[in-house]
Amino acid sequence: MSQRVLAGFHAVAARLRVAADTIDAIYFDPRRRDGRMQQLQERAREARVRLVAADSERLRGLAGDAPHQGVVAVAAAIQQLLSLDDVLAAVHPDTLLLVLDGVTDPHNLGACLRVADAAGVDAVVVPRDRSAGITPAAVKAAAGAAESVALIDVTNLARALDAIADAGVVTVGAAGEAEDSLFDIDLGGPTAWVLGAEGSGLRRLTRERCDRLVRIPLRGSVESLNVSVAAGICLFETVRQRLAAQPSGRAE
Amino acid sequence: MSQRVLAGFHAVAARLRVAADTIDAIYFDPRRRDGRMQQLQERAREARVRLVAADSERLRGLAGDAPHQGVVAVAAAIQQLLSLDDVLAAVHPDTLLLVLDGVTDPHNLGACLRVADAAGVDAVVVPRDRSAGITPAAVKAAAGAAESVALIDVTNLARALDAIADAGVVTVGAAGEAEDSLFDIDLGGPTAWVLGAEGSGLRRLTRERCDRLVRIPLRGSVESLNVSVAAGICLFETVRQRLAAQPSGRAE
Repeated sequence: MSQRVLAGFHAVAARLRVAADTIDAIYFDPRRRDGRMQQLQERAREARVRLVAADSERLRGLAGDAPHQGVVAVAAAIQQLLSLDDVLAAVHPDTLLLVLDGVTDPHNLGACLRVADAAGVDAVVVPRDRSAGITPAAVKAAAGAAESVALIDVTNLARALDAIADAGVVTVGAAGEAEDSLFDIDLGGPTAWVLGAEGSGLRRLTRERCDRLVRIPLRGSVESLNVSVAAGICLFETVRQRLAAQPSGRAE
Repeated sequence: MSQRVLAGFHAVAARLRVAADTIDAIYFDPRRRDGRMQQLQERAREARVRLVAADSERLRGLAGDAPHQGVVAVAAAIQQLLSLDDVLAAVHPDTLLLVLDGVTDPHNLGACLRVADAAGVDAVVVPRDRSAGITPAAVKAAAGAAESVALIDVTNLARALDAIADAGVVTVGAAGEAEDSLFDIDLGGPTAWVLGAEGSGLRRLTRERCDRLVRIPLRGSVESLNVSVAAGICLFETVRQRLAAQPSGRAE
């Protein structure tokens, strides 16, 4: 089974909570003795996970570029059993997908997973050949979400978008040049947000596949937003509209 | 005059656009000959800015940890002439401030400046002793906004919040434990969003100073959002409400 390196408290604690038995060992800096580290070690002992004291060189060797805060776990990769077909076979009125076209920076991918989890998305869809992988930096930025959100990689993104639309999910692309603002459209039904990489944005083929294109109304001098910030604005506008449509009329 | 290092295309191009005469020199990797680099060099020549070919060691020495993409500028720090008093003396119905309590990671500070600029805030306010500085990493993450958004550092944040409230600006703190959702409150008047550091959140003293506390309704398993993503959601909900209140009733 392939292995994954989880760096930092968030990522290690999340894996301990969700699937402790997939952890091979937790490597920790014995000079760190604060409450957070003690609590993590207690949880690890309760779950009978092997704890290994390690110096900073060894921790850095495992974590690579990801800030590890003195704790790194080596664990089996949790298999993503969900396929796009599974998700589309179970489309419901609140289905919410995030499609990322060309997010090749692992930190940005992790940040997108984190906000996708927070907004309650069903799955994040990425093209296999134009996406960052779940590197330690991505796992760290995901703050636990790399363990909880279904990440589905597809061979052909244009075909996946067609399949998503065929399943009754409206595909909405975010594009700076679009005429409509995201605040002017109805996001009440099953929705897939399609976001591109910073700088280059959505590819033409991807853009043409979207049912709608909208822009985030920018009011300053910067030309674009970080993709995870854009994802947060688009996904939580969807959450807002759906909460407002509930019988109580108030956010839960 | 103190100097600032700007790393990467976004930051260097923004400074060239806004205040080319403050640039001492632009250092570039002569092996990079793509269109983006050529365009930047053309702009620099038009603005009569000195161009210096530099090897990667020299570029890294200037940029530090910030990814520089083969281009680094050394420039005078643009003085932030605006003070909190100036901003509060000019409060208008659409005044929008972002107060960051304890954002000590330069990348996060830069990302917050970027989304603050995009949402059209009047100023970002930080406590002098509990904030990251405008390091090259912050300037890079700000994608040009470090040049365009007023960043005001204050000695005493609690006192600054009192002054903001006294000037008729409603201070709204984001706190996970708050009862109200941000989608349930009226953000039509002058507003200051108060966000804390990830993990520790708002300090008690800061929280108690806020007129209101609201939470972002999280629907997944992660416990919090990156501060720049949270800022994006809060600031653009404010933008949405204000656009909706305009006579046309549509986003611009």
